[in-house]
Amino acid sequence: MHQRLGRASVRLEEGVYIRESASVVGTKEGQGPLGSFFDMVGSDDMFGCGTWEEAESSLQKDAVYLALGKAGLKPEDMNYIFAGDLLGQSIATSFGLAQYGIPLFGVYGACSTCGESLLLGTMALAGGFGEYAVCVTSSHFASAEKEFRFPLEYGNQRPLSASWTVTGSGAFVLGREPGEHARARITGMTVGKIVDYGLKDSMNMGACMAPAAASTIERHFRDFESGPQDYDRIITGDLGSVGQTVLIDLLREKGYDISQVHTDCGMEIYDAETQDTHAGGSGCGCSAVTLSAYILRQLEEKSWKKVLFAPTGALLSKTSFNEGKSVPGIAHALVIESTADPRPA
Amino acid sequence: MHQRLGRASVRLEEGVYIRESASVVGTKEGQGPLGSFFDMVGSDDMFGCGTWEEAESSLQKDAVYLALGKAGLKPEDMNYIFAGDLLGQSIATSFGLAQYGIPLFGVYGACSTCGESLLLGTMALAGGFGEYAVCVTSSHFASAEKEFRFPLEYGNQRPLSASWTVTGSGAFVLGREPGEHARARITGMTVGKIVDYGLKDSMNMGACMAPAAASTIERHFRDFESGPQDYDRIITGDLGSVGQTVLIDLLREKGYDISQVHTDCGMEIYDAETQDTHAGGSGCGCSAVTLSAYILRQLEEKSWKKVLFAPTGALLSKTSFNEGKSVPGIAHALVIESTADPRPA
Repeated sequence: MHQRLGRASVRLEEGVYIRESASVVGTKEGQGPLGSFFDMVGSDDMFGCGTWEEAESSLQKDAVYLALGKAGLKPEDMNYIFAGDLLGQSIATSFGLAQYGIPLFGVYGACSTCGESLLLGTMALAGGFGEYAVCVTSSHFASAEKEFRFPLEYGNQRPLSASWTVTGSGAFVLGREPGEHARARITGMTVGKIVDYGLKDSMNMGACMAPAAASTIERHFRDFESGPQDYDRIITGDLGSVGQTVLIDLLREKGYDISQVHTDCGMEIYDAETQDTHAGGSGCGCSAVTLSAYILRQLEEKSWKKVLFAPTGALLSKTSFNEGKSVPGIAHALVIESTADPRPA
Repeated sequence: MHQRLGRASVRLEEGVYIRESASVVGTKEGQGPLGSFFDMVGSDDMFGCGTWEEAESSLQKDAVYLALGKAGLKPEDMNYIFAGDLLGQSIATSFGLAQYGIPLFGVYGACSTCGESLLLGTMALAGGFGEYAVCVTSSHFASAEKEFRFPLEYGNQRPLSASWTVTGSGAFVLGREPGEHARARITGMTVGKIVDYGLKDSMNMGACMAPAAASTIERHFRDFESGPQDYDRIITGDLGSVGQTVLIDLLREKGYDISQVHTDCGMEIYDAETQDTHAGGSGCGCSAVTLSAYILRQLEEKSWKKVLFAPTGALLSKTSFNEGKSVPGIAHALVIESTADPRPA
């Protein structure tokens, strides 16, 4: 059913199916280039809640609700939920998902969490531990700024290398079987390791994460005996424009030219020129909502047949930053393919 | 190879083996009733580091180093590492484990993290995704007080229901095969869900977590068609004396009397009378070091043949606490059994 290709790379012959998914975003994301693709756009970024953290919890709750509804499944059908976010002690997850009563695996991979949760969900189902799992993650611009940087009221200047945390949540219902119309299937995986080049600039996370993305993608190519030519797109999570340059350069040194097929969710979600987002979008929600709203759509429409999806995470906290530590990175990669038959209209 | 018994309960016919493990603790834990069982006791709680957070990172690093050494394995032999801690954004893990270069799944389950990481490692190996995994978690009294409560210098009074965060880390090397002498094997699992009774007292986490422990243990009994009589011990993570009473009462209402076989790691690790730890020990490290140093030893010596190990977690952050939120709980359960043959001396 699956074949180990290397230390942490596995090919899934049958695959695990992304039965359905949903994306919920804030106003800025709704105004961006992908705006019309999202399932739900909030009319303001409080989403009817009293705090930023509660608003982020409501994003996860709504994304799971929509994804289950589209899949025609109930919370009770889910064997497990794999979920996490950027806030200390993952409180967006804890308070957003309690009411569903689904057995929970809390995960933390910074902005790579969408990839990590999909990997674990895939392993659980392909390994015979369940029929269905839901994977969800979120970020919120205001709760993240409060958690990692400055109070919004302080109005700090942001350098051009900084990214803008996406307000959004993406949820994915995985199934062992395709059902009537799965959106796509996961057919391969390479698990990432921590890579630390010693960079300390939390306002340039793209450069901090690019070495981790390069490490995972290179290992993936080697383990799968594949290369850039084998994928319609190689899609990182939130490297942004600065990190993209670093990634392409690092992989070129290793003999791989991904420049023609590389896309970054952080560069797709905003129009940097008109939306003042500088290097691009970031946050757990960035790759999650872009996967749900845009990448899976391309795979359904067969514009793309096979992509390598590699969310990237910057492993820092305000404490580690204030203690002068570096910002290590991590990236996890999944091969996601079109289902064999076109999805019925 | 494994048999699903319920929504989130699985029996592993072959089992996954705990090949080796190690425990590293601070001075207070070294002076406690289990002191002589730990592999390493620090001479002070800084462990030669400059900050509490670095000290906690060094605990994880040392525990993994010792466990691998005892197993006669190298970091390169490990397919995956499953790791997490209590600090915001799991920085003890990120900075403690980077140097090993093992593909990482970061997990967050508050003080249930030892259970969560063992569940995921078991699923990965039993599911055919690898030969070896290492699971590690930690907590540190001083970094936890800073993260969740008050500066140590403030010298706040602690109510009798409060617990004392264990300074320690436990690491477990899992293998698909038993090797020459595995310490024990994992033969069953029940994954926990978030349970929130609305309690808000972060100085009484035992009461906050007990309903989650009761929920998981009850589901486990039902799914496995077992009961208290089938286990030599049912061992929770860090309910302490207050939480123990609540757990026993809640399960009695469901028709299960565990009072004769219940043990709590938080009540074993300190002598509450002489060590001024009030309700007991807590923190991710509490159940991890107790499993490594004490529970596995009992299983090796065949004093116990089969235990239900159920670490408990309180899902709060200082932000959620300050915003007046409740403290939901979660607990994950694993069946851990003696290996078939006595371990060679």
